[in-house]
Amino acid sequence: MRSLESKKTRRDLRLVVAEGEDLFDAAYAAGLRCELVLFDAERVPADDPRVRLTSRVTQRYSVPGEMLARVSAMGHAPRVIGVFAQPETPGFRTVPMPPKLGLWLAGVGDPGNVGTLVRTGAAFGCDWVALGPGSADAMNPKAVRASMGGVFTMPILEGVRAEDLATRPGLRVVAGVVNGGVPHWEADLISPLILALGAERAGIEPALEALGSSVEIVRVTIPQEPTAESLNVAAAGAVLLAEARRQRAQGISAAEA
Amino acid sequence: MRSLESKKTRRDLRLVVAEGEDLFDAAYAAGLRCELVLFDAERVPADDPRVRLTSRVTQRYSVPGEMLARVSAMGHAPRVIGVFAQPETPGFRTVPMPPKLGLWLAGVGDPGNVGTLVRTGAAFGCDWVALGPGSADAMNPKAVRASMGGVFTMPILEGVRAEDLATRPGLRVVAGVVNGGVPHWEADLISPLILALGAERAGIEPALEALGSSVEIVRVTIPQEPTAESLNVAAAGAVLLAEARRQRAQGISAAEA
Repeated sequence: MRSLESKKTRRDLRLVVAEGEDLFDAAYAAGLRCELVLFDAERVPADDPRVRLTSRVTQRYSVPGEMLARVSAMGHAPRVIGVFAQPETPGFRTVPMPPKLGLWLAGVGDPGNVGTLVRTGAAFGCDWVALGPGSADAMNPKAVRASMGGVFTMPILEGVRAEDLATRPGLRVVAGVVNGGVPHWEADLISPLILALGAERAGIEPALEALGSSVEIVRVTIPQEPTAESLNVAAAGAVLLAEARRQRAQGISAAEA
Repeated sequence: MRSLESKKTRRDLRLVVAEGEDLFDAAYAAGLRCELVLFDAERVPADDPRVRLTSRVTQRYSVPGEMLARVSAMGHAPRVIGVFAQPETPGFRTVPMPPKLGLWLAGVGDPGNVGTLVRTGAAFGCDWVALGPGSADAMNPKAVRASMGGVFTMPILEGVRAEDLATRPGLRVVAGVVNGGVPHWEADLISPLILALGAERAGIEPALEALGSSVEIVRVTIPQEPTAESLNVAAAGAVLLAEARRQRAQGISAAEA
């Protein structure tokens, strides 16, 4: 279980850990195959649906709470921990391309931010999330938790470089930049788009350059206090996805008005 | 240093820890008094401005990197850790009341969310942030880090209950609720308001009830996919504060249009 804290081991074994009832249930609801269950019989009764549902799982152990705490990657003692087969990794050919709304994370290294952005993307109807170089693994325990299980159901494209997008005709990339873009409410966020977000320090510009000229690029900036620190990338993503939602619901963008 | 991971100790001593150059600089820039500096002389040269600036600090120690790693609450080895006097805690009489834009966090227990919301509030020009019962301490190391030092400059009111707000005439509270509110873009977010956010599970309703009828309450809901998990509270706060920004910049809310 502890070895699954390593990205390499998770990838080699194609496994993901779901800690706590909520994530366990989310993994089950997503149809992932459960490979192993550890539960605390003192806190999860044997007639609990979770334990019953997993009765066909061979590796199913009632263990002391201290052991659950010890194998937990979250630093507390969950009542149940499950190890599941990772969801299938989709390819470019199996997802809508261009998407109505896609999310491309280029260099978002913090797994909590990746997970939160997957959760937010699900809330606002993203067709998929693509992870570019430097982005954290969506199966990282912190990403899984921050996504509230969203990583189990959202199609997540891995290792998507600017060069990969550059070869796709008809894509439109709306990139969140800290300075110099149009105010986000003035951009057309109704037409199909891929929202591109970058690292908080390096920003998205290096990735945009590699997109070349075959992809339409719109740079947007969220207006804020001049003296303030820029927004956290997950907060910026939420603002931009919500604005797309507003424009699509109201049927107008300021660009058209 | 480790004892300052405890909220009680931080409060009793009125101290806060700033780990790493960025937070250290932010605390300095905010004018906080530095009480103690630990730095790794191998990685922070003696002519570094940080070390020079703090030359009048009596307790100033060059220590091995392993010791910095050991006293770090963040689980990695920063090059510098400072202990500062906490910023003064403002009262109701020393902050704008009613504010043009205030933020009231009622039961936001995760320190990362509190810190992110302070950072986001600073970016969108909040006059102050009020912490209600059940909200995490803004001086928690995770909150300090997530705020990017915003907790050093943002006026933060502590222990603000619904009953405290109920006695203030002329307040208008816009509350983010998961279901049943008006779409956030249809609410008037131009008039002075306090944005109220609650716990992700319990929600804000219990706090709203305690506000009574002396305060105008507007419930807003961020429209999202019906099947999705609700947004993270920090993401929801970013969306609502950004919408206030948009309405104020454009001079119209949908409610008026």
